[in-house]
Amino acid sequence: MIGGAEDKGLNPERGEFQQQNLNYVELGILRRIVEETGGIDARIEVITTASTIPFEVGNNYLNAFGKIGCTNIDVMHIQKHEQALDEDCIKRIRACDGVMFSGGNQKRLTSIFNGTEFLETIIHRYQKEKFVIAGTSAGAMAMSETMIYEGNASRAHLKGEVKTTRGLGFMSNVIFDSHFEKRGRFGRLAQVVATNPKCIGVGLGEDTGMIITHGDRMEAIGSGLVMILDGHEINHTNIANIPTGNPLSVENLKVHFCARGNGYLIKERKFVEQITKSSEAVASDMF
Amino acid sequence: MIGGAEDKGLNPERGEFQQQNLNYVELGILRRIVEETGGIDARIEVITTASTIPFEVGNNYLNAFGKIGCTNIDVMHIQKHEQALDEDCIKRIRACDGVMFSGGNQKRLTSIFNGTEFLETIIHRYQKEKFVIAGTSAGAMAMSETMIYEGNASRAHLKGEVKTTRGLGFMSNVIFDSHFEKRGRFGRLAQVVATNPKCIGVGLGEDTGMIITHGDRMEAIGSGLVMILDGHEINHTNIANIPTGNPLSVENLKVHFCARGNGYLIKERKFVEQITKSSEAVASDMF
Repeated sequence: MIGGAEDKGLNPERGEFQQQNLNYVELGILRRIVEETGGIDARIEVITTASTIPFEVGNNYLNAFGKIGCTNIDVMHIQKHEQALDEDCIKRIRACDGVMFSGGNQKRLTSIFNGTEFLETIIHRYQKEKFVIAGTSAGAMAMSETMIYEGNASRAHLKGEVKTTRGLGFMSNVIFDSHFEKRGRFGRLAQVVATNPKCIGVGLGEDTGMIITHGDRMEAIGSGLVMILDGHEINHTNIANIPTGNPLSVENLKVHFCARGNGYLIKERKFVEQITKSSEAVASDMF
Repeated sequence: MIGGAEDKGLNPERGEFQQQNLNYVELGILRRIVEETGGIDARIEVITTASTIPFEVGNNYLNAFGKIGCTNIDVMHIQKHEQALDEDCIKRIRACDGVMFSGGNQKRLTSIFNGTEFLETIIHRYQKEKFVIAGTSAGAMAMSETMIYEGNASRAHLKGEVKTTRGLGFMSNVIFDSHFEKRGRFGRLAQVVATNPKCIGVGLGEDTGMIITHGDRMEAIGSGLVMILDGHEINHTNIANIPTGNPLSVENLKVHFCARGNGYLIKERKFVEQITKSSEAVASDMF
């Protein structure tokens, strides 16, 4: 899951700017996705459904993966529910090693994919096989069962301001938010966690991501920060008792800041100072 | 301490708008300040030093306190260090029941007042007598020993991005930030708390404040939220070891959201679900 605006190897000399000018080869999140998926020959389908400018977005990713040396990337421009029912699309999902959901609007993802065999196939492969699901911005936010789709950051401390609905449902024990520091979204994720303390809140900064393996083990990657919000020890909250529009009261929300190399174990709810790469990534040993 | 933009009883029909349109008489923070200071006959000096438009700011406060029914409010337009040395100003501080620092730039407050008898007199009266110090925005941020004066919210997760200096020094065990949700300042206060875990971070929302009595007992007032950041149980942070500009790693920051009526005890580091008014406010019984 990536917080948006991941480094796509843009070329500043040609007027292509990125907020963080990190060494693409050393730190690129996309490079790590390729590594997790099995290396530069892995087949990755880029799904541009969240975006209303799918061709531009798709070409950006083809270009970025191309710079890494990938030889087997393709783009799926599914823009309507009926296209998701197409047997060829499902076949492509059965044949690839991983998918990458682009950014855009997360409600486009859920309204087009929820209830389809296309989505069931992704979920089945994710649960039963070695299969990578990547997503950025809206593509990350849609991954959990509970998905935030609206909420003004400066009013997010008021009950009812943050709206959630059912996401794509790859995971049930986490809730994602993206562009986290840039858009000041701490309050909005905190409200959702206070309402669903079963779930760990994962606030993804830009050009920053979390690799989750076996639905449990998280490793922070990229140039920024992932904030973990743990509501399991909340002693008091007024959220059930106050009228909509009133400010929240919350006692004892636990927060961790994960920079690159830090990890978190969801089931144990444990911050890990230095987490090793997942065995899959080590095994692929692509570079 | 008020997070800025407190309700000043503006009149929308005359084109005077406030973000929160709450009932001024019931919820006004200024009314509570008057109550704490001793009632509508209490003498309060409004200190406009932080502002570069002191006369406009001063008149706003005279007008707002006037609407409450106050009869004994005055304004001190100290704009230079040498004016702070004036014996008449010091006499006025000796004679009043409380002071109110306006918003503006907190570095103007420290550069003009630090090291003066004017400030020493305020501190002495605060420590030894029944004396109220109020402040909004910059006027709140300057109150602690450690004062934040700069830090871009969207880059506040990077080491060195948040700048602090010595404030007016009324309290040593807290650090204030203002306009907290509106400007997405969680990361910036968290960075300062991670560096100074001795101090409790107090993030003040707009039209929201904390009443602190006996340097320990906090009561949230106003229409929004005060976030408390407690760094005493931080297990791991990389802040001492990473180069400037790198993202922070922090394990186990404790956060509380205080809405109106919630409290916090600084020494015990304890959230209080329902805190009663301070005995001073009850005793004044102005209304």
